[in-house]
Amino acid sequence: MLPPYRSHLSSAIDGNRSNPYSRFFQLATVTPAGYPSNRTLVFRGFLEDDSNSLKIVIDVRSAKVQDIERQAVGEICWYFTETREQFRIQGVLRLVKAQDKDSDLLKARNIAWQELSDAARSQFAWSDPGQPAADQSTFDIEPPDPILPPDTFGLLLLVPQKVDHLKLRSDPHQRCIYQLETDTTWSSQWVNP
Amino acid sequence: MLPPYRSHLSSAIDGNRSNPYSRFFQLATVTPAGYPSNRTLVFRGFLEDDSNSLKIVIDVRSAKVQDIERQAVGEICWYFTETREQFRIQGVLRLVKAQDKDSDLLKARNIAWQELSDAARSQFAWSDPGQPAADQSTFDIEPPDPILPPDTFGLLLLVPQKVDHLKLRSDPHQRCIYQLETDTTWSSQWVNP
Repeated sequence: MLPPYRSHLSSAIDGNRSNPYSRFFQLATVTPAGYPSNRTLVFRGFLEDDSNSLKIVIDVRSAKVQDIERQAVGEICWYFTETREQFRIQGVLRLVKAQDKDSDLLKARNIAWQELSDAARSQFAWSDPGQPAADQSTFDIEPPDPILPPDTFGLLLLVPQKVDHLKLRSDPHQRCIYQLETDTTWSSQWVNP
Repeated sequence: MLPPYRSHLSSAIDGNRSNPYSRFFQLATVTPAGYPSNRTLVFRGFLEDDSNSLKIVIDVRSAKVQDIERQAVGEICWYFTETREQFRIQGVLRLVKAQDKDSDLLKARNIAWQELSDAARSQFAWSDPGQPAADQSTFDIEPPDPILPPDTFGLLLLVPQKVDHLKLRSDPHQRCIYQLETDTTWSSQWVNP
């Protein structure tokens, strides 16, 4: 059974489909030093199992991997400009790298790779992200193998535990908080915006 | 003298002016329990002094105040959809409440209040945010005094210390990191995207 926030989130994704950037959201993590960190990432759909996990693809060389390996918790803030609503999705992060032991997740990682465009795949063959800028020529590369992902490719899953849905179109604004109570049971509570 | 990232940020704000939501960004903080927290807020301009602080208005009853009072550090993630560029702005947070001792900041708080619309000001007279939903009638109120802010109104400043600017329109993407080295000196470094 789908958790109660899922129909609202799916409606928002659907209702904002005409804007390509409606699939972009911001993921906050905490750095090893304890500071907040925040970046825009792309929603790649839901994992096809019962977890309702959101799929994200990341470069395992990027700084956020250190945040995740120290504390595997994140909060997505997803604002939909067309329907004027926000979802704050707090959850557990699960990073699937080439060496993962879970064969189902490795398969999901392969599929996520295959679903990318050549341009998106090429970024995983670029020089180390965050390092002093390499020569321009190192970015002029042939697209990588479209079937087998390179070691730099990670599938990042966010498994929702709490969802805060705010609708700015209503007057007054409407806000509902959904919380995972047991493995499969969600509570919901209308709160003041 | 303006820090080197300011002209790029001002250009982005200007180049995306046609979208009202281009003034929305996501602010990440860390909760007292050490978890990441993330929400959409509205850019209210720069403070008119030499600090380059970004102005935000918040309800002092909201949960983020606890985050800020425990650790006054935040990271803004600001994605501009029209020009396809992202600014990650890390900095120190300074919350100005009614009881503040700094008269210049209290004056800035008053001005920020006066610059809001009636609709925006009314939200500060709504029932406690985050509490179980109050009766609809408690939201049908007269707009508050447009001159003197209520105690619920806070001016939140983010004083930038590090700015990570990513331009997705370039091929390959361009990324530059600006860092505050002394009180007024900024370094800049092109890095791999």
